[in-house]
Amino acid sequence: MGFTPRGFLGDKPSKAPPLFPFLLTFLLVGSRGDSNAMDNVSTERLAEESHRQDSANLLIFITLLTLTILTIWLFKHRRFRFLHETGLAMIYGVLVGVILRFGVHVPQNMSDVILGCAVNNSPATLLVNVSGRFYEYTLKGEVSRGKGHQVQDDEMLRKVTFDPEVFFNILLPPIIFHAGYSLKRRHFFRNIGSILAYAFVGTVISCFVIGLIMYGFVSFMKAVGQLGGDFFFTDCLFFGAIVSATDPVTVLAIFNELKVDVDLYALLFGESVLNDAVAIVLSSSIVAYQPAGDNSHSFEAMAMLKSFGIFLGVFSGSFALGVATGFMTALVTKFTKLRDFPLLETALFFLMSWSTFLLAEACGFTGVVAVLFCGITQAHYTFNNLSPDSQDRTKQLFELLNFLAENFIFSYMGLTLFSFQSHVFNPLFIFGAFLAVFLGRAANIYPLSFLLNLGRKNKIGSKFQHVMMFAGLRGAMTFALSIRDTATYARQMMFSTTLLIVFFTVWICGGGTTPMLSFMSIPVGVDSDQDSPNSAVLDGSQRRDTKHESAWPFRIWYNFDHNYLKPLLTHSGPPLTATLPTCCGPLARCLTSPQAYENEGRLFDDDSDSILNDATVSSMYADVTVSTDASGRTVNRSSGTRGPSDDCVDHDLALAEHEVAIRGTRLVLPVDDPVEPPTTVTLPSPPSPPGSEPRRQRL
Amino acid sequence: MGFTPRGFLGDKPSKAPPLFPFLLTFLLVGSRGDSNAMDNVSTERLAEESHRQDSANLLIFITLLTLTILTIWLFKHRRFRFLHETGLAMIYGVLVGVILRFGVHVPQNMSDVILGCAVNNSPATLLVNVSGRFYEYTLKGEVSRGKGHQVQDDEMLRKVTFDPEVFFNILLPPIIFHAGYSLKRRHFFRNIGSILAYAFVGTVISCFVIGLIMYGFVSFMKAVGQLGGDFFFTDCLFFGAIVSATDPVTVLAIFNELKVDVDLYALLFGESVLNDAVAIVLSSSIVAYQPAGDNSHSFEAMAMLKSFGIFLGVFSGSFALGVATGFMTALVTKFTKLRDFPLLETALFFLMSWSTFLLAEACGFTGVVAVLFCGITQAHYTFNNLSPDSQDRTKQLFELLNFLAENFIFSYMGLTLFSFQSHVFNPLFIFGAFLAVFLGRAANIYPLSFLLNLGRKNKIGSKFQHVMMFAGLRGAMTFALSIRDTATYARQMMFSTTLLIVFFTVWICGGGTTPMLSFMSIPVGVDSDQDSPNSAVLDGSQRRDTKHESAWPFRIWYNFDHNYLKPLLTHSGPPLTATLPTCCGPLARCLTSPQAYENEGRLFDDDSDSILNDATVSSMYADVTVSTDASGRTVNRSSGTRGPSDDCVDHDLALAEHEVAIRGTRLVLPVDDPVEPPTTVTLPSPPSPPGSEPRRQRL
Repeated sequence: MGFTPRGFLGDKPSKAPPLFPFLLTFLLVGSRGDSNAMDNVSTERLAEESHRQDSANLLIFITLLTLTILTIWLFKHRRFRFLHETGLAMIYGVLVGVILRFGVHVPQNMSDVILGCAVNNSPATLLVNVSGRFYEYTLKGEVSRGKGHQVQDDEMLRKVTFDPEVFFNILLPPIIFHAGYSLKRRHFFRNIGSILAYAFVGTVISCFVIGLIMYGFVSFMKAVGQLGGDFFFTDCLFFGAIVSATDPVTVLAIFNELKVDVDLYALLFGESVLNDAVAIVLSSSIVAYQPAGDNSHSFEAMAMLKSFGIFLGVFSGSFALGVATGFMTALVTKFTKLRDFPLLETALFFLMSWSTFLLAEACGFTGVVAVLFCGITQAHYTFNNLSPDSQDRTKQLFELLNFLAENFIFSYMGLTLFSFQSHVFNPLFIFGAFLAVFLGRAANIYPLSFLLNLGRKNKIGSKFQHVMMFAGLRGAMTFALSIRDTATYARQMMFSTTLLIVFFTVWICGGGTTPMLSFMSIPVGVDSDQDSPNSAVLDGSQRRDTKHESAWPFRIWYNFDHNYLKPLLTHSGPPLTATLPTCCGPLARCLTSPQAYENEGRLFDDDSDSILNDATVSSMYADVTVSTDASGRTVNRSSGTRGPSDDCVDHDLALAEHEVAIRGTRLVLPVDDPVEPPTTVTLPSPPSPPGSEPRRQRL
Repeated sequence: MGFTPRGFLGDKPSKAPPLFPFLLTFLLVGSRGDSNAMDNVSTERLAEESHRQDSANLLIFITLLTLTILTIWLFKHRRFRFLHETGLAMIYGVLVGVILRFGVHVPQNMSDVILGCAVNNSPATLLVNVSGRFYEYTLKGEVSRGKGHQVQDDEMLRKVTFDPEVFFNILLPPIIFHAGYSLKRRHFFRNIGSILAYAFVGTVISCFVIGLIMYGFVSFMKAVGQLGGDFFFTDCLFFGAIVSATDPVTVLAIFNELKVDVDLYALLFGESVLNDAVAIVLSSSIVAYQPAGDNSHSFEAMAMLKSFGIFLGVFSGSFALGVATGFMTALVTKFTKLRDFPLLETALFFLMSWSTFLLAEACGFTGVVAVLFCGITQAHYTFNNLSPDSQDRTKQLFELLNFLAENFIFSYMGLTLFSFQSHVFNPLFIFGAFLAVFLGRAANIYPLSFLLNLGRKNKIGSKFQHVMMFAGLRGAMTFALSIRDTATYARQMMFSTTLLIVFFTVWICGGGTTPMLSFMSIPVGVDSDQDSPNSAVLDGSQRRDTKHESAWPFRIWYNFDHNYLKPLLTHSGPPLTATLPTCCGPLARCLTSPQAYENEGRLFDDDSDSILNDATVSSMYADVTVSTDASGRTVNRSSGTRGPSDDCVDHDLALAEHEVAIRGTRLVLPVDDPVEPPTTVTLPSPPSPPGSEPRRQRL
């Protein structure tokens, strides 16, 4: 047993300090405060030196990000489309990685004391008694095993390597929350059936197809003697799970910028957001399957069922938790008048969203999944209760966090190509993986699209299918999942291969999307924001299609949402007194906000009311009462004013300038609806958006 | 020598998990990824358990913050003025502290292995060889020395105790940056002489007065036998330094809400912001003095001089660094067209501001001080280059960060009252400290005000002096400085006493400010935002006073700033081609942005142009050319349009609706200015603020 205390940093500061996780930056210094500083000057000096060093390391990383931002600007400014900003961040990362790997030599100046102690496992905390004083040490992790005392040579590169949990606990949550929060819910809900199919069924198909192909390759490699370690079938499945998740980041950026067809965008984005959640739970279920049974990694029905149970349990638990926190925030923002103080409101919103993550982790669920659904719920309900100021603030805050986290991850990805020490690049495995990823994606998209097209009126064209195939980039989630555990040979090979897959898809597929779209002659420059009434020219066929798209379970959900949830959780919708049975009268009165009676249907959110925007709306109103408020105070920006029964339309148009409010409507969705004649409604653009005056009000 | 590995957490999770620093939350989990998880299931489970635990701990803290926010809202809603929000946060903290201290019992279920190892100092990192695998441990700090193996009993309470460096490295920077960034520079610069006097001279006076009084008390205590350990004169001085810093947080909140006299507000706020910087550097200089000489803590001229040199060096270094980063950000935002992409711009701004802190720490300067001056510089120059969207974003972002950090600190302050384990409450010392703080504040305010009034035309009245005396609350900085080192008996006693002082001043003085103001019959509800031209009715005497206030060094600075720095760093001001000597022509043309010629004087910033707003402006324009742009594109919101020479005024008034632009003015400040006849200029309110249309443009 060896016990090796050593100086963390040499006396002479290294020339180019390595990048150190920024959390550690502050922790290492911690020793300064607690230790008896006055009497222990050397420890003090060491800690101070280490603090400076860490500050310098982090500074380099921030400089890297700053450079990336400036280059992104240059690219946007000069309208270079061939490389996306995430690709750029990766290139900068690779450059720094090369410099650290080959250009920097840290002087080794450490005093080693090797002592023998009999310990037979590694505890999380050590208490060391030095001359009567107790020092606490925390476990940082295992260092490159088997290398014995040569570890110090890799000291610097090891320090560059982040704690993988940082990705899961700090960098991914804002990215995923932002994806949920900024989801264009109208287009999302219109295609929800197809999105769920691609995300759930497709990802599982892809996972198994990739797993099987890789198992074939691995068996072949074992036969040829190319394999340097164990590689079980569960490892193959795990690999399938982690590389099946497509990345929303790049898709969002490219397709949003190019303004392609809204349905294509919704399908791609919706799929990539949800399959992150699926992949995370799927991979952890596979890991949970692994140690079961007699550890022989053979197939076992019970363990398989247990894994499936874990998958369902964790997914639904995380889902429920995220939605529950969203509901709670909505209720709090509805029943307190926090909107008078935007700062408090924003802070509350931020804290509640963060607590979702923590709560899920504390309960053993998956924080990232919970945060995704929390984001969607917040956008659907809470957002409507916020003051206009907070709506801006929260959107911008999460946008910024997302941007920083995303660029950080992609820079780091580039960095690890050279800084990670246990890379296992196996050409055969890499070839197999690329092939498997390609086939897995194909097995997801084409058969599912065929099946979905049987049910869809608005067919997913073959061009769209090719684009979906091509745009299945792998990104942050794939990376985070693969770096989470790089202990075994199999995992190391997976990690290296995954890294190459991410690089390839981001650089080649990401960069090639624009040429691809023009080659496929898919129209770009479509206005995806059909939220404002003046762009609400829906042609008949499209309207019928979307109606068809909304299958009956979703229509029931819409109905429930509009009649009960929206009135309960927001200030909008019909008052609960009108929708609940009369026996619940007192409760309904208590839960309905006073605004609901007068501001009913008032939704500041641009695309929250996908429910009302659908074509089904035209046959939706059983008892419509339209009344206008000439003072303009009761503002109805929801596009629900489009498409009441036809005899109302002219009235609407005449009064559109004064805004329309629909009072006391009870939404009754016809489940077996006859095909309505298409109505084309064009509203003039509204006057200045409501709430622009109180925007300036501050806390 | 004892070597005590132990299980960090019992098998059974504790009922009410203690609050753990949130950085550790993510670090402890780190062990999961690195260690060979597959083979070492027990470590894996331990780490996972610990991760859950930490998530739960952090969750409790977030719930606490959420509760605070809701209560703050309730107080604001019901217009309770007797308790400020920071006081509230402290009360919640105290409650949780009491519960943790007396209500929670953690079951002790740890397996101890005690081993002997011969180590004679505590290194920053340990490598432990367990069955051939190397695990890395990092130093967390010393645990309550002298207690030997009983430390585990206090495990839980110790875990609640934050790493003190978290305050300096994470929580203080956003607070201080926000203070600098949101400074009302017009009022600040108008009173800069007095503010500097109070902040620098006053704080040093207060520090020495408190130090001397405390030394007297300590000597008395030693004579009576009330002292349980060493307490040197330098300790007394250190105590003086840490309790001399008044807190901007509470002052800002109370006085901003009540809208008291702008000059009083500027004096109090300016002083409290700057004396944070002074206190931080002063205290570290005193610490630097301490170990000098033969460690006898006696007075020594050389060491004293050295300390003074360190004070000057660190302060000016930090100042220069902060300003330099601010300049760099201004240049970058000026010469790139980043303003087309607000998200990139905001991200850059955030990263550059953060890098100031890191750069200063890496260079051995004080990050907090650098960040303060960086904030002021950013607000003065960079802010003008930002797009309106980014201006909002950055303001709101730092406002939010400030709010969260501030409430976190005050909650934690309340918590430590019960959770800190080494409290030393000595009634005599506490009495002495309260007396010393009172006298020290008096020795700062009254004599300095008397001296300043000799020079000021706009006297600081005795009522104002009493308010300044009363409103000298101690807050976050005092706490952070005192908790930084609690190793010796002296420091522990200081910390406990400081905590009581903070509690007393925040609760009693903070809560009593409103009654105090009305008792003193100091008018509240004054409009402190005299930025908009329609409130620009300055009466003659005030104008002469402010002119007098601006002593010649400041006028030279104004001149330099307006003629050279503003044109160089922003798009506004006279073009450099007009202000620089002709020999620098090509350089000047290169550095002047095209907008400078047309948008000269265009400043979106509300209070950045303190220079032009001063009364001296009326005699400032040597060659004024006023031209208007009827299209309204060239918008001059700066109040510099007030007070050109009298014959322009009518012209101005007539054209005010179309905005006024002053082109090609060269600002020449008369150093020996004759007293100008007072001119009262009232401009009608401007039309809608510029830039409200492009606000919606997004990346």
